[in-house]
Amino acid sequence: MKSDKTPVIVVNLKTYLQGTGEKAVTIAKACRDVAERYNVGIAVAPQFCDIYRVASQVDVPVYSQHIDGIGAGSHTGQILAQCVKDAGAVGTLINHSERRLTLADIDYSVKAANEAGLYTIVCTNNVETSASAASLGPDYVAIEPPELIGTGVPVSSADPQVVKGSVDAVKNINSDVKVLCGAGISKGEDLKAALDLGSAGVLLASGIVKAEDPEKALEHLVSQI
Amino acid sequence: MKSDKTPVIVVNLKTYLQGTGEKAVTIAKACRDVAERYNVGIAVAPQFCDIYRVASQVDVPVYSQHIDGIGAGSHTGQILAQCVKDAGAVGTLINHSERRLTLADIDYSVKAANEAGLYTIVCTNNVETSASAASLGPDYVAIEPPELIGTGVPVSSADPQVVKGSVDAVKNINSDVKVLCGAGISKGEDLKAALDLGSAGVLLASGIVKAEDPEKALEHLVSQI
Amino acid sequence: MKSDKTPVIVVNLKTYLQGTGEKAVTIAKACRDVAERYNVGIAVAPQFCDIYRVASQVDVPVYSQHIDGIGAGSHTGQILAQCVKDAGAVGTLINHSERRLTLADIDYSVKAANEAGLYTIVCTNNVETSASAASLGPDYVAIEPPELIGTGVPVSSADPQVVKGSVDAVKNINSDVKVLCGAGISKGEDLKAALDLGSAGVLLASGIVKAEDPEKALEHLVSQI
Amino acid sequence: MKSDKTPVIVVNLKTYLQGTGEKAVTIAKACRDVAERYNVGIAVAPQFCDIYRVASQVDVPVYSQHIDGIGAGSHTGQILAQCVKDAGAVGTLINHSERRLTLADIDYSVKAANEAGLYTIVCTNNVETSASAASLGPDYVAIEPPELIGTGVPVSSADPQVVKGSVDAVKNINSDVKVLCGAGISKGEDLKAALDLGSAGVLLASGIVKAEDPEKALEHLVSQI
Repeated sequence: MKSDKTPVIVVNLKTYLQGTGEKAVTIAKACRDVAERYNVGIAVAPQFCDIYRVASQVDVPVYSQHIDGIGAGSHTGQILAQCVKDAGAVGTLINHSERRLTLADIDYSVKAANEAGLYTIVCTNNVETSASAASLGPDYVAIEPPELIGTGVPVSSADPQVVKGSVDAVKNINSDVKVLCGAGISKGEDLKAALDLGSAGVLLASGIVKAEDPEKALEHLVSQI
Repeated sequence: MKSDKTPVIVVNLKTYLQGTGEKAVTIAKACRDVAERYNVGIAVAPQFCDIYRVASQVDVPVYSQHIDGIGAGSHTGQILAQCVKDAGAVGTLINHSERRLTLADIDYSVKAANEAGLYTIVCTNNVETSASAASLGPDYVAIEPPELIGTGVPVSSADPQVVKGSVDAVKNINSDVKVLCGAGISKGEDLKAALDLGSAGVLLASGIVKAEDPEKALEHLVSQI
Repeated sequence: MKSDKTPVIVVNLKTYLQGTGEKAVTIAKACRDVAERYNVGIAVAPQFCDIYRVASQVDVPVYSQHIDGIGAGSHTGQILAQCVKDAGAVGTLINHSERRLTLADIDYSVKAANEAGLYTIVCTNNVETSASAASLGPDYVAIEPPELIGTGVPVSSADPQVVKGSVDAVKNINSDVKVLCGAGISKGEDLKAALDLGSAGVLLASGIVKAEDPEKALEHLVSQI
Repeated sequence: MKSDKTPVIVVNLKTYLQGTGEKAVTIAKACRDVAERYNVGIAVAPQFCDIYRVASQVDVPVYSQHIDGIGAGSHTGQILAQCVKDAGAVGTLINHSERRLTLADIDYSVKAANEAGLYTIVCTNNVETSASAASLGPDYVAIEPPELIGTGVPVSSADPQVVKGSVDAVKNINSDVKVLCGAGISKGEDLKAALDLGSAGVLLASGIVKAEDPEKALEHLVSQI
C-alpha cells in the first residue's frame, strides 16, 4: 500500500518461525482485521515463499522483504521484482539492515520495483543515509538505527533526533517521499511518538510477531492514535 | 527428489520471465508429464515466490534455487530452509554459480536443509571444489564449469574430464554423494554422454525453459536413454 | 590531494601488472613529473600493498583504491582508514564500481576517512546515485557509467548528460562537493570536454597505465588545457 | 614460512591500532627476536598497507591477511597475490572468519597464491569445512571455531575434539596439509595442548597484539614446548 490511510504500519515477519507458512497467514489475517476495525493502514511482509500463500488467501497489502537489483535472466536464487508482483505483493522493502545492498543496487531495485508496479520502502540507518535514499525517489524511507533493532527500546524515544532529522532531510531532497520509522517500536505510545515526530508510520517486527497474541498487540499499537 | 529413478533431471527456471508465475506452473506440468511418460525423475526449481504456487498445484518434485546459511530469527530477506519446506519444496540447490556462498555457509545450508528434510544439490565449478563439497555430505554435487553455463556447449562433450574427475573425486570422499552435471546441456545426446561419464543426471535451464516448446525439449532430452 | 590546482587527475592502477610493485613507483614518478611540468594536480591510486612503497619514495599525492566501513579491531583482511593514512596516503576512492559498498558502508567509510584525515572520492554510476552520494558529504563524487569503463569510449562524449546531470544534482545537494568523471577517458580532448561539462577533473586507469609510455600519455592528456 | 621449525606460530595483527603502521614493525621485531631465541617459527600477518614496511625492515616471515580470487586486471580495491608477494610477503591467510570467501574463490585464491609463490593457510570453522579445505591443497588448514575467537577461552581446552577431528579429517584427505589451530590461544599451555592434539601450530591475535608487552607474551607462549 501507498495508503491514503495514516498511519502506515508494516509488520515484517523476518524469518521468525512464528511468522512462517500458515502462521504468516494467521498474522496477515490479524493485520487485515485490525486495519479494518481501526481504519488504519497495515501491511505485512512475509518471507518470499509465503507471499503467494498470504496474498492469495488474505485481503491485506503484502510487501516483499527484499528484491535484488537484477532483471529477468540468469540470476538463480535472486529476487525478481516481477515475480514478487506476480505472487501478489504490492510493494517491497529494499536495503533492510539485515539485507543491505550496494548504492547502485538500491537505485536499480527502486527502478525495477517501479517498473513492476511495486511500492518501495528503502531502509536507512541514520540521517545522512536517509537523505541519500531520498535522492533515489522511493515511496518511503524507513529510518531504523541498527543498534535499536530488536531491543524493545523504541527509536522514537531513544533517539527522536534521528527520526526528526530524517523527516527534515528527506523533505528537503524530495517532498514526495514519506518517512517511516522502525527499531524497537511495539506499543501505542511509540507509534504516537513516531507520528508526532513527522513520520507517516512505522516498520516493526518482533514486538508484534513474537507477541503472545499478535492481534491484541496490533490493537494496542493503534489504539492511541 | 532423491529419486530411485535415474536419470535425475533438474530444470532451473532462474529468473527467466518464461518461467515466472503461471509460466512456472506450466513448465512444472510439462516436467511432471514427461517424467511419467518416460519413467524418469524430473524436478523443477522455480523462483522462491513461485514454490508454493507450483507445489500446491502440480505433483512434481520442487527444488528451491537457494537457501541461506541462517536459522529462524532476525534475517529479513533471507531464505529459511523451513519456510522453503513448508511451501512444498523437497530439496534445494546450494551455491549455484549465480548465488555463491562462503564455505561456512554452504556447510550451514546443507545442515539446515537436512534438518528441514530437504534434499541438497551443492553446485561446484571444478574437480577440486567438487571434492570439497563432497566432504559436506550433500545428496548431490552438481558440477558446472561457469564458462559453459548458458552457452549451449554441453560440458559432457566440451570438458568430459571435469565430469569424470568430479565423479571419481566425489566417490573417493563420500560414496553416498551422487554427481549431477550442468552447463550447456539441452539435448538427448548430452544427457546420455553425462550418464556415460558416471553422473546420475543433469542440471539444466535455458535449453528447456527458453525452448519454443519446453515439453518437446524435455521429451527430446530423455528420448535417447 | 584536494587540490587548489585544476584539473584534478587521479590515475587508478587497479590490479594491473603494469602498475604493481616497482612499476607503481615508476608511474607515480611520471605523475609527479607531469604535474610539476604542467602545473596540474595528478594523484595516483596504487594497490594497498604499494601505498607505503610509493608514498615513501615519490612526492605525489597517493590515494587508496578503497577503504572498508570499519574501525580498529577484529577485522582481518579489511582496510582501516588509519592504516591507509599511516602508510602515506592522502585520500581514498570509495565505492568504485569494481568494489561496491552498501549505502551504510559508504557513509561509514566517508566518516572514517574524514576522521583519519583522508580526502574522499565516492564513485557513482548515474545521476541519481551521484545525488545520493553528495548527501554523504565526500570531497568528490566521481561519476563513471560502468558500461563505459575500460572501453576507451570517453563518457564526456558518449554520455555528456550523465556528467552534466551529476554536476547539477551534486551542486544542488551540497555545493562543497566537486565532481570528477571517469570511464573511457585517456586523451586531452576527453579531459577538456569533461572540464567543459563542469567537472573538476577525471578518474582514469587503463588509458594511462597500459599505455606504451605512461608519461607521454599523461602529457598528451594535460596538453590541451 | 612453511617452516621446518615446529611449532608454527602466526600472529595476526587484524586491524588493531596496536599493530598498525610503526607498531606493526615493533611487533614484527618481537616475533623475530623470540623466534631466534627459542628456535621456533613465528610469522606475522600485518594489514596490507603494512606488508612492505614490515618486510623491508624486519627479517621475519610476513603473511598477508587475505588475498582475493582474482588475477591481474580491472579489480580496483582487491588483493592481487602477485602484489602481496612483491611487497615481501611469503604467504597468506585465506578465508579468515572475518573475511570469508566463496568456495570457488578459496580454490582460486589457493591457486593464485601457489602461482605467486606464497604459502597458504586456509581458515575453517569446524571439522567438515576443514576436510573441505584440505581438498583444495593448501599448505595449512587453520581451524578456528568462530564462537571462541577473541574470547581468551582456548579452543585446545574448550573444544579439543574440533582440533583432533580436523587433524584426522585433513590427514585423511591429503596428508601433505598441516593443521593449525586458533581461537582463544594466548598462553604456553594452550600452545602445548594444541600441539598434543596433532596440530602443527597456532594462529593467534589479541592475546599477543593487545598484550601489555607483546614480546613477553610471545616468550610465555613458546616457553613450555
